[in-house]
Amino acid sequence: MNEAVMNPKTSAADIDAVRIDGERLWNSLMELAQIGATPKGGVCRLTLTDLDKQGRDLVLQWARDAGMTVTIDKIGNAFMRRAGRNNALPPIVTGSHIDTQPTGGKFDGNYGVLAGIEVVRTLNDHGIETEAPIEVAFWTNEEGSRFVPVMMGSGVFAKAFTLEHAYAAKDTAGKSVKEELERIGYIGTEEPGQHPIGAYFETHIEQGPVLEDNDVTIGVVQGVLGIRWFDCTVTGMEAHAGPTPMALRKDALQVATHLMQEVVAAALRHKPHGRGTVGMVQVFPNSRNVIPGRVQFSIDLRNATDALVDTMADEVKAFAAKLSQESGLPIEIKQVSGYPAQAFHPDCVDAVGRAAAKLGYSNMPAVSGAGHDAVYMAQLAPAGMIFIPCKDGISHNEIEDAKPEHITAGCNVLLHAMLERAGT
Amino acid sequence: MNEAVMNPKTSAADIDAVRIDGERLWNSLMELAQIGATPKGGVCRLTLTDLDKQGRDLVLQWARDAGMTVTIDKIGNAFMRRAGRNNALPPIVTGSHIDTQPTGGKFDGNYGVLAGIEVVRTLNDHGIETEAPIEVAFWTNEEGSRFVPVMMGSGVFAKAFTLEHAYAAKDTAGKSVKEELERIGYIGTEEPGQHPIGAYFETHIEQGPVLEDNDVTIGVVQGVLGIRWFDCTVTGMEAHAGPTPMALRKDALQVATHLMQEVVAAALRHKPHGRGTVGMVQVFPNSRNVIPGRVQFSIDLRNATDALVDTMADEVKAFAAKLSQESGLPIEIKQVSGYPAQAFHPDCVDAVGRAAAKLGYSNMPAVSGAGHDAVYMAQLAPAGMIFIPCKDGISHNEIEDAKPEHITAGCNVLLHAMLERAGT
Repeated sequence: MNEAVMNPKTSAADIDAVRIDGERLWNSLMELAQIGATPKGGVCRLTLTDLDKQGRDLVLQWARDAGMTVTIDKIGNAFMRRAGRNNALPPIVTGSHIDTQPTGGKFDGNYGVLAGIEVVRTLNDHGIETEAPIEVAFWTNEEGSRFVPVMMGSGVFAKAFTLEHAYAAKDTAGKSVKEELERIGYIGTEEPGQHPIGAYFETHIEQGPVLEDNDVTIGVVQGVLGIRWFDCTVTGMEAHAGPTPMALRKDALQVATHLMQEVVAAALRHKPHGRGTVGMVQVFPNSRNVIPGRVQFSIDLRNATDALVDTMADEVKAFAAKLSQESGLPIEIKQVSGYPAQAFHPDCVDAVGRAAAKLGYSNMPAVSGAGHDAVYMAQLAPAGMIFIPCKDGISHNEIEDAKPEHITAGCNVLLHAMLERAGT
Repeated sequence: MNEAVMNPKTSAADIDAVRIDGERLWNSLMELAQIGATPKGGVCRLTLTDLDKQGRDLVLQWARDAGMTVTIDKIGNAFMRRAGRNNALPPIVTGSHIDTQPTGGKFDGNYGVLAGIEVVRTLNDHGIETEAPIEVAFWTNEEGSRFVPVMMGSGVFAKAFTLEHAYAAKDTAGKSVKEELERIGYIGTEEPGQHPIGAYFETHIEQGPVLEDNDVTIGVVQGVLGIRWFDCTVTGMEAHAGPTPMALRKDALQVATHLMQEVVAAALRHKPHGRGTVGMVQVFPNSRNVIPGRVQFSIDLRNATDALVDTMADEVKAFAAKLSQESGLPIEIKQVSGYPAQAFHPDCVDAVGRAAAKLGYSNMPAVSGAGHDAVYMAQLAPAGMIFIPCKDGISHNEIEDAKPEHITAGCNVLLHAMLERAGT
């Protein structure tokens, strides 16, 4: 802790007037995005690669430059700490991840981590001391594109699965998480989950189109949708398209199309947060002049509560049973995975809402349709998220983009929500 | 010609009573099926391979044993001739092909060729002399699985494309039709198409389920359905399944399902021969939690006349235009190929019907949904086809099967239809 920048005499009104340095934050984002930069303007910095090590080193250097202390745990999660007045209090934590998809963008994850660093830099600039310590975390392997499961670091931290399970995960080249952590020097000594957390905030691009569509700056995230994933197989009878009259066909694809439509219909019956997607389809034998004998496809159902997701799933299954009976074709629906819905803590949600209102940013309640490290943190402590718009709702793509004013706004909301929770 | 077996004194009544030797035909089918036999009971004898050469050699040996003379043309088509009383008349020809699919069966094609051999053996047994000569042909590369185009030998013969075009076709190993014909010694000297044809009959398993479903022995084939093949692309917007609410989606697959259903609906509106098939589907990016941004699929439309196929195509296109307007998603439909409908000659169709009736076999009018060498022959001379049931309508499969009594029946119909046309 750099005592020189501390100034306990800042008043409450002064604190309300504090704003982060948007240009500094933007510049840090652009500098980090150089590591693994792709020709199309994106970033490829897969978890636990040399590039990930470079990224981690840079972020930790910035943290140390801001007077923070660093702890690494056994799964490589990093905690950068700015002491408070009362260091017996659990820290108010913010964070996200800095690993990217193979053709990822500059903002997903990285924004949440660097917004935390910018909050600390701003506190330092204004000599603001907080009651509880402030911490900024980055979690290992949120993306899951090199190693599964996704949200690995926060998942181990929240004991969703064991450290051993995570260590054993291998990439397609056969390298394990443990050996790669050791290789890049990011296998720490702290037991994951030992770290106390007073509250957790995560700032993130929305990765969806709602804020942009509503021309709103801040999404006050209420929670994360529950998800059920199913594999569905319709079995018909492969036959030649020419010699087989319509009445004697068992066309698996035609039957499947009705069920694919029902997936969307079920979502539309359970507004506003119901979502139904068929993203993956395989037709067998997939030949122009052969009637499909088998069709496999994925079903992705989401909604704001587990009960609603269950209702949607029940409706889709009932439709499938009826369709199977009518068509005479067997239909199998098998759940392959599921994630419970996770409401964020009212205190944190309200802190985000209050900060946005105080700062004069247009804001609206939002839900997260995708998983985030904050979901695991919400199992351990009060948690909340701040969304900002991203261009066309696109992420996991090199063209992912966000406006500097939104980047700044989200970080200002983070600053004031954290200050409310940490106390000044 | 073996003069010893000729007996010009056979009466018309005697001739009506003549039947082929079903066991001999069956045994020949089983013997030929040994060449390239697969463990699952099928045959893999791809065109112009060593196995094809062995098959060709065996069939020609049988022809010579039956006193026939052999001509090979430049594309490897073989014509096995039994002289008539008036050899100035164009021959009455039957035939098919002996090449198979990679996982083909014992009957597709082979039956049509060996039924012709059995007709000649039967004429010999009974000392029957015909007015016009009788010929049995096998056509090179009907299947098209090693070299495209399909129906290559009959296509060159009918001048649907040139000999040079066929010669230049290469397999995946880079070997050309011409070098493979030379290598196996089946590049003849006769100009393809020089051979006169008085009439053409082809006996074939139905490759569809209609005869079996109606419990009928003989299909009197009226013609071959016209075909149009299209490639269709629906373009939406790829987006994450989680964060994207239903109202803001441009789900290419959901739009595509409606058009896939219209393909079937168009066929059902144009009974009894309308057929509509979507056999091939590709979804992009085909990921479980990504809303499909693009879907490509094939459309196969068939009907008994070209006008009906055109009407179906127009209806599907109009539906697509409306769907595109309603959904706001571009839909492109592009014709990739088409084959005109081909009606068989009434004289040949009637000859088949009369023979089936005379022999007391249950029979019904049939259409061929698939292409056959007979389609090209129908462009050159009166032509007709005889269908027999195959098990579950399955062909192009190692489990392809046909009953010996149907094999026998079809060959008896061929015998009497050919005798009617050749004159005795």
